[in-house]
Amino acid sequence: MSEKAVILISGGMDSCVTAAIALRSYTPYFLHIKYGQLTQNRELEAFTKIADYYKVEKRLVAELDYFKQIKGSALTDDKIEIPEGLNTSDAPVTYVPFRNASFLSAAVSWAEIIGANKIFIGATEEDSVGYPDCRMSFFESFNQMIAQGTQSKDIEIVTPVIEMKKSEIVRVGMELNAPLNLTWSCYKSEDLACGKCDSCLRRLRAFTEAGLPDPVIYE
Amino acid sequence: MSEKAVILISGGMDSCVTAAIALRSYTPYFLHIKYGQLTQNRELEAFTKIADYYKVEKRLVAELDYFKQIKGSALTDDKIEIPEGLNTSDAPVTYVPFRNASFLSAAVSWAEIIGANKIFIGATEEDSVGYPDCRMSFFESFNQMIAQGTQSKDIEIVTPVIEMKKSEIVRVGMELNAPLNLTWSCYKSEDLACGKCDSCLRRLRAFTEAGLPDPVIYE
Repeated sequence: MSEKAVILISGGMDSCVTAAIALRSYTPYFLHIKYGQLTQNRELEAFTKIADYYKVEKRLVAELDYFKQIKGSALTDDKIEIPEGLNTSDAPVTYVPFRNASFLSAAVSWAEIIGANKIFIGATEEDSVGYPDCRMSFFESFNQMIAQGTQSKDIEIVTPVIEMKKSEIVRVGMELNAPLNLTWSCYKSEDLACGKCDSCLRRLRAFTEAGLPDPVIYE
Repeated sequence: MSEKAVILISGGMDSCVTAAIALRSYTPYFLHIKYGQLTQNRELEAFTKIADYYKVEKRLVAELDYFKQIKGSALTDDKIEIPEGLNTSDAPVTYVPFRNASFLSAAVSWAEIIGANKIFIGATEEDSVGYPDCRMSFFESFNQMIAQGTQSKDIEIVTPVIEMKKSEIVRVGMELNAPLNLTWSCYKSEDLACGKCDSCLRRLRAFTEAGLPDPVIYE
C-alpha cells in the first residue's frame, strides 16, 4: 500500500495533471473546495468526473461561505464583471485574496486526520502575476508554518507543475492519459466555455502551443 | 477614524478580553467561525451578545463544513466523548487539527478586502499543550507566510493575551469592563456549563485564582 496524499482538485487542467502525476506514487485523497465562485457547480461536476475516471473513493468536498460574503473578487461578487482578454494586471479583479491559504489549511487538517504526509496542488508560476498565493515562495513559507502548527510535523505541500508552462502541462497530461476532456477552466460560464476570459484564453493558447486540440467546447 | 482590525471572537473569555484590548486602538471587524463543533450554536450566541455589547456593526460569521466531515476530534465527532478533568496529554482528543490556520486564513482574506492590517486572536500559550497552533512560533511563522501570500504585505497576526495566565486574563478583562458574563467556554453543553470538561475547569481555576466569581452558571 503506497503512502497517502491529499490532492487538491479544482476541476481545471492543472490540478488534473497534478493528480495524474501524484497517482503514480500515492494513494489519493481528493479534495475539492466550493467557495461561492460563479462556476462552482460546473467545477464540482468536473471534480466528480475526474474522481470517477480515476476511481478515487476517498473524496472530500468542502464548502466555504465567506469568500462570497466578503466579496471583492470578480469570481465571487456578482457586481464585478469577469474581464475579457488575457490578464496583464498585477492586481487582477479575479484575484480571490489568500484563497490558497484557506484551501491548503483544509487540506492539512484532513492530512493530519488520515495520516497523509503530502498535499498536492496544481499551482503554476505562469499564473502567479497578481496571484501571490501561487508562488513557490508562498508554498515554501506555508510548509514552514505547517511544521510549527501541526502535531505531525512532516506534512508537506508538493507542487509538481509549478515551473511548467501551460503547454507543457497539456503535453504531460496527454502522456499520462489525464482526462483533460473532463476538466473545466472557464471563469464565467457553466455550459459552453466563453473562450474570452483570461482562464479560457490561457487554456486555448496552451493547447495551440502544444499542437493539440482542446476537447472543451466553446461558445 | 482609527485603523481597522479583524478580531476573531470565538465567544470564549480569551477572545472577549482580546477584543477589549483591541477596541482601545482599532475599528473592529468581528469574525466568528462555526466549524461544526458541539456547542456551535451557543458560541454563536455568545459572539452575538459580545458584538452587541460593544456595538460592533461589521460582523462576519463564516461556516466551515469540513471539520465535521473529517472528524477525529471530540469537538466535532459525536462518537468521541469529551473527557472530564484537566487535560495533561500532549495529544488531547479535543485537538482540532490545524484549526487556527483555517480561522486565520479566513481572517486574512477579509482583512485584505477591507484594508485591515491587524488580526487579533486570543490564543494563549497556557492552552498550547497539545495545541501547536496556539504557540507563538506558529503565529510568527504564519505572519511570514502572509507576507508571501498576499498583495497587501503588511497584514499581521496580533496575540495580546498569549503570555498571560488565564487568571490574568480574567483580571485584565474586569479592568477593561469586558463582558465576561456573556462568554461561553464549555466544550460540551449549550444550556448550563458542565463544569467538568478541560475548558470549564481551566475557566473555573482562572476565576478562583483571580479571586473573582465566575458569572457563568454551572450544572
